[in-house]
Amino acid sequence: MRSGMDMVSIIRKKKAGGALAREEIEYVVRGATEKTLPDYQLSAWLMAVCWRGMDARETTDLTLAMAHSGETVDLSELGGVCVDKHSTGGVGDTTTLILTPLVAACGAPVAKMSGHALGHTGGTLDKLESIPGMGIELGQQAFIAQVRRIGCALVGQTDALAPADKTLYALRDVTGTVESLPLIASSIVSKKLASGAGAIVLDVKTGNGAMMQTEAESIELARRMVDIGRIAGKPMVAVITGMDEPLGSHVGNALEVKEAIDVLAGRVEGPLLEVSLILGALMLVAAGKAPDTATARAKLTEALRCGAGLQKLRQMIQAQGGDPRVADDPSLLPQAVHRVPVPTLRAGYVARMDTVAIGYAAQSLGAGRVTKDDVIDPAVGLVMQVRIGDRVEAGQPLAVLYANDTEHVAEALEAVQRAIVIEDTQVEPPRLIRALVTAEGIIKQE
Amino acid sequence: MRSGMDMVSIIRKKKAGGALAREEIEYVVRGATEKTLPDYQLSAWLMAVCWRGMDARETTDLTLAMAHSGETVDLSELGGVCVDKHSTGGVGDTTTLILTPLVAACGAPVAKMSGHALGHTGGTLDKLESIPGMGIELGQQAFIAQVRRIGCALVGQTDALAPADKTLYALRDVTGTVESLPLIASSIVSKKLASGAGAIVLDVKTGNGAMMQTEAESIELARRMVDIGRIAGKPMVAVITGMDEPLGSHVGNALEVKEAIDVLAGRVEGPLLEVSLILGALMLVAAGKAPDTATARAKLTEALRCGAGLQKLRQMIQAQGGDPRVADDPSLLPQAVHRVPVPTLRAGYVARMDTVAIGYAAQSLGAGRVTKDDVIDPAVGLVMQVRIGDRVEAGQPLAVLYANDTEHVAEALEAVQRAIVIEDTQVEPPRLIRALVTAEGIIKQE
Repeated sequence: MRSGMDMVSIIRKKKAGGALAREEIEYVVRGATEKTLPDYQLSAWLMAVCWRGMDARETTDLTLAMAHSGETVDLSELGGVCVDKHSTGGVGDTTTLILTPLVAACGAPVAKMSGHALGHTGGTLDKLESIPGMGIELGQQAFIAQVRRIGCALVGQTDALAPADKTLYALRDVTGTVESLPLIASSIVSKKLASGAGAIVLDVKTGNGAMMQTEAESIELARRMVDIGRIAGKPMVAVITGMDEPLGSHVGNALEVKEAIDVLAGRVEGPLLEVSLILGALMLVAAGKAPDTATARAKLTEALRCGAGLQKLRQMIQAQGGDPRVADDPSLLPQAVHRVPVPTLRAGYVARMDTVAIGYAAQSLGAGRVTKDDVIDPAVGLVMQVRIGDRVEAGQPLAVLYANDTEHVAEALEAVQRAIVIEDTQVEPPRLIRALVTAEGIIKQE
Repeated sequence: MRSGMDMVSIIRKKKAGGALAREEIEYVVRGATEKTLPDYQLSAWLMAVCWRGMDARETTDLTLAMAHSGETVDLSELGGVCVDKHSTGGVGDTTTLILTPLVAACGAPVAKMSGHALGHTGGTLDKLESIPGMGIELGQQAFIAQVRRIGCALVGQTDALAPADKTLYALRDVTGTVESLPLIASSIVSKKLASGAGAIVLDVKTGNGAMMQTEAESIELARRMVDIGRIAGKPMVAVITGMDEPLGSHVGNALEVKEAIDVLAGRVEGPLLEVSLILGALMLVAAGKAPDTATARAKLTEALRCGAGLQKLRQMIQAQGGDPRVADDPSLLPQAVHRVPVPTLRAGYVARMDTVAIGYAAQSLGAGRVTKDDVIDPAVGLVMQVRIGDRVEAGQPLAVLYANDTEHVAEALEAVQRAIVIEDTQVEPPRLIRALVTAEGIIKQE
């Protein structure tokens, strides 16, 4: 059987709207992993999938085939269900830094692998690396040993996990085939399964700062991922959360670490804490450490109050070679030289924000990468001073820029001014929690 | 501007259902011609075109860009309108061999380039090469000089014409993106325009032996091509003709040359002659050599009656180095050693045929190629003894196989028996001419 012949039949079947058999999907994934299928056939296939979609069974087969395309992490020796959390990415979202120690402090082991950032949102690894001395590369044995010893670890994802996803994602990026629900869902879940997750809590962002801009699309993506979990026998649940403005006020790597510490220390409340508690409660329930989310939430709140979450962060930083004193003194984190307020040009009410533009403003100061090879400045970024619905007087700061050189400050300042729209009439703050998507169904939060 | 970036935008625009600008289409075609765009982007783009289609303006832009992607033949020195004919391909269709000399004999120059066959239909070049000594490779100057001298030439298409079409077609073949009306239409017309056609008469086959199996699809393909002609300012007209059984009775290279000679000599009538007269009349009108098709048809009939068409074939064979005596004595063509009748297994009426299977049966005897490198045996093939609607008695031959070795005879015999379905009730012969598609509209023939 000629392999080219086979792949053409598979492409044509999908092109005609047919559902691919598991063997056919595994053939494609193996071809992508082993580079035995030419890129031009893979990209035609990807576009056919964008066109015709995939049903839940196909999407699950694709996810599992990609998850098993390389090394997998075996967390079984930790005992129980190792729960993971994934966010589809937002601006000022540092829930991973809060939840990894906080959930561990409540007795559920968290063995978490994260990625670097590319685009308008920050990456957990980049944030972590802003802690002096902090290591993010641990061998699989050391990683598991740390979780067994202190209850949590937060490290970089190795290239050896889900290599098929890596190949297909790179191809999607250059062939206009990124936007496709089954491709997005399988890409996310395959990496989580490869890294050993026993249960997954998903935070699917919705709004102008998110990958999915409408609530309907976000719910649909969540449903696709939860369906994969259902079919693959991995408990999954998704929360749809608003991303029409930055989640926390801090945007930038060390700045977000500081805010995470502030939340764990009980100094900061608001949407970032609220989303953390909701996701954390679902994680504890999924891990079997609480019978329901109300009980779980009480546990989390107590771990915050008594300082157990912050103590767990201290331990984790120390275990990974970082300076644990930052947990008590965030000023030990890299500090930017310049702090530049962004004044509003008019009085009124904050009506809406271009959240992506705010993310890119922080990136332009050096907080993110435009290309893979860019070097991040951990100290820079911005701190929001307003949220949607707030009253502002003329000249009052909308945000404060944190910069180490003045080259891009004017540009970032104008970008933030343009991104935050002030109007005469007050609007309601956007709802934070939109829906809960479980294997049983969708519970809308009105 | 990074070229990768641009192509991704173009792919995404088509993926979203947008109409591409002429500059964007030219960018893609240039990238395919100069190999500056990677195959994986071209194939994603091709699949997006299969998905979203192209409007008439886009299809025309694609056609013209491909037509001008390499060398073009300039027939202007011949004066007047040089009319070309194209068939989408059928079994036992040798109208090109009949029309090239016959139309030339009526005063319209025919400078025709053809291709080899691959698949279940024969190629005009392969048929021509079965004439002893016949040359099919002429330089552009010699080609035009021959048309000026004797009125016609029939040669091979060089690779230098429409190279973008060649690249894209090769990619379509291995990425499941062959079936797409704008891609099919632009591929056909671009080659015709590159080879200098001033007007084009199209024969779009319909039925189980054709690329387009339904009348609606065939009319739609014809409409797309005629639209290109209208927008590009090249007169085009299309006839939709039936291909639910072989057009002529002879299938195979020398066998089809013999049948063409028989038609030109007035010895054979029927569907092959009828389609030839209809296409030829449209060619004469398009070339300005007749005011209407009735007058044109009378001219063609007279050229047949007086032997002017056969004389022109003699001249053309001689001009291209072939043995002109075959025009008077087809037994000088390569002859097969074995003639094996295919008996019907039961009495009844011929109800329908699997025309593709009949084409492949001839191919299996050596008349066609499975891969590009296969060598064709000019002598072999088959001669049909029945048409749909005919009465047959048990044991009566359905066809006669012409073979040079007996290896594949049993297989071909069974294939033909399976391909021709005999039933108890008589059916009407299928209609030969289904519709005429002109720039003004579609005229259905009921």
